[in-house]
Amino acid sequence: MSKPLTLVLGGAASGKSAFAEKRVIASGSNRIYIATAQAFDDEMRAKIARHIAMRGDGWTTIEAPMDVAGALARTTAQDNVLFDCATLWLTNLLLAEADIARATDGLIRALRACPANVTIVSNEVGQGIVPDNALARQFREAQGRLNIQLAEEAADVFQVIAGIPRQIKGAET
Amino acid sequence: MSKPLTLVLGGAASGKSAFAEKRVIASGSNRIYIATAQAFDDEMRAKIARHIAMRGDGWTTIEAPMDVAGALARTTAQDNVLFDCATLWLTNLLLAEADIARATDGLIRALRACPANVTIVSNEVGQGIVPDNALARQFREAQGRLNIQLAEEAADVFQVIAGIPRQIKGAET
Amino acid sequence: MSKPLTLVLGGAASGKSAFAEKRVIASGSNRIYIATAQAFDDEMRAKIARHIAMRGDGWTTIEAPMDVAGALARTTAQDNVLFDCATLWLTNLLLAEADIARATDGLIRALRACPANVTIVSNEVGQGIVPDNALARQFREAQGRLNIQLAEEAADVFQVIAGIPRQIKGAET
Repeated sequence: MSKPLTLVLGGAASGKSAFAEKRVIASGSNRIYIATAQAFDDEMRAKIARHIAMRGDGWTTIEAPMDVAGALARTTAQDNVLFDCATLWLTNLLLAEADIARATDGLIRALRACPANVTIVSNEVGQGIVPDNALARQFREAQGRLNIQLAEEAADVFQVIAGIPRQIKGAET
Repeated sequence: MSKPLTLVLGGAASGKSAFAEKRVIASGSNRIYIATAQAFDDEMRAKIARHIAMRGDGWTTIEAPMDVAGALARTTAQDNVLFDCATLWLTNLLLAEADIARATDGLIRALRACPANVTIVSNEVGQGIVPDNALARQFREAQGRLNIQLAEEAADVFQVIAGIPRQIKGAET
Repeated sequence: MSKPLTLVLGGAASGKSAFAEKRVIASGSNRIYIATAQAFDDEMRAKIARHIAMRGDGWTTIEAPMDVAGALARTTAQDNVLFDCATLWLTNLLLAEADIARATDGLIRALRACPANVTIVSNEVGQGIVPDNALARQFREAQGRLNIQLAEEAADVFQVIAGIPRQIKGAET
């Protein structure tokens, strides 16, 4: 039986990762970080280094730019998993021209089967103006649909604004 | 006497249309859909087809890319109207180089005079970075001002995030 | 001893400035407006003129495109200060290739030392898609981090959506 899923939404640099990390750390030890970032350039390398420093020690990292379902399948009921983030995972799939609907179905099935305590971080990307290029519009639609599906699965959904979390689904007990 | 107006705000692919449709369906029969999309290209045609399929049967569609005021004037007190969406209406007006302030005044007057139960869907577009081109900036300002005016008229305002509606004005009874 | 700080967040054309101005006006007389806009072109000149007209009489304006800390140091315990907005201040610093971290530290120190009642307006810019160019991404990150720091300092934080304010930190008394 899977445990309640937590989804943390927020814009870029909204403090969503810091909030999600704090929650996972508070959940206990056996912390697993499912890493989706790929260090293609200096900007990304700097961002990854900054996030590793922020996160601190005590995490086991599983690199899974695309096969997050496989990473989830390797966890146990003792684990506290942070999947950061669904937006990079989706970006990696789009750049690889993967079948998004199929990959999303696989992710949802893996989340339902996962014995660990899982927290997912995902970006809100739909509140700017319509992007000029078709790929960006396609990405925006795919991200919106993915967030809707993840929010349906999640017991607790938070939106982080300027570092301030607000629970928009579920209730703290 | 006009009935209380409902405004549903959300980003792209936030689930705002699905939420608005459910509310209008729950309001009863005599459902009227004021359609603003124009099928200029394949991407738009696909989006329109997807929305028609989602909406299901039982709707009378009035095509009104710009004359939404005229469409509202044709409704009766028995009708439940969904105007989806104010963002496309505004886009159509801007592309036609229409007088936005005057068209907005006309829309507000038509909403106040309308005997039907009306729900409006509109996009939030102001939370990205400042767009490069002047037309996009002009659109963003116009959309922001329109949302403020519609929210003033509305008895109930909802913001939809990842498919989760939150009421930000009015209260469910 | 400094007074509780208020932060007003919102997207472009969300009604955040109008809400902030109303609050400052309600706070009393001795109103000081810290202006950050620089009239480089006609679009900006028109925007500045529109904001001056909206604000009305009864304000002392201090022009401080970059040295907001210096402007804050000139206020007294009787003053009600509106700093509108942190986004333009940050933009001015980035265009001047200033040290953002150092300027932000200086601003935070000045806010803590300031004897006046201060309200800050700032934009949410992180909820669109990832911008194409590196400067825009850098700006988006810097704005996000600045908003987190200002929200930490503030006793009251509001988010304005379509002219509707919602308090996300602190509580009205």
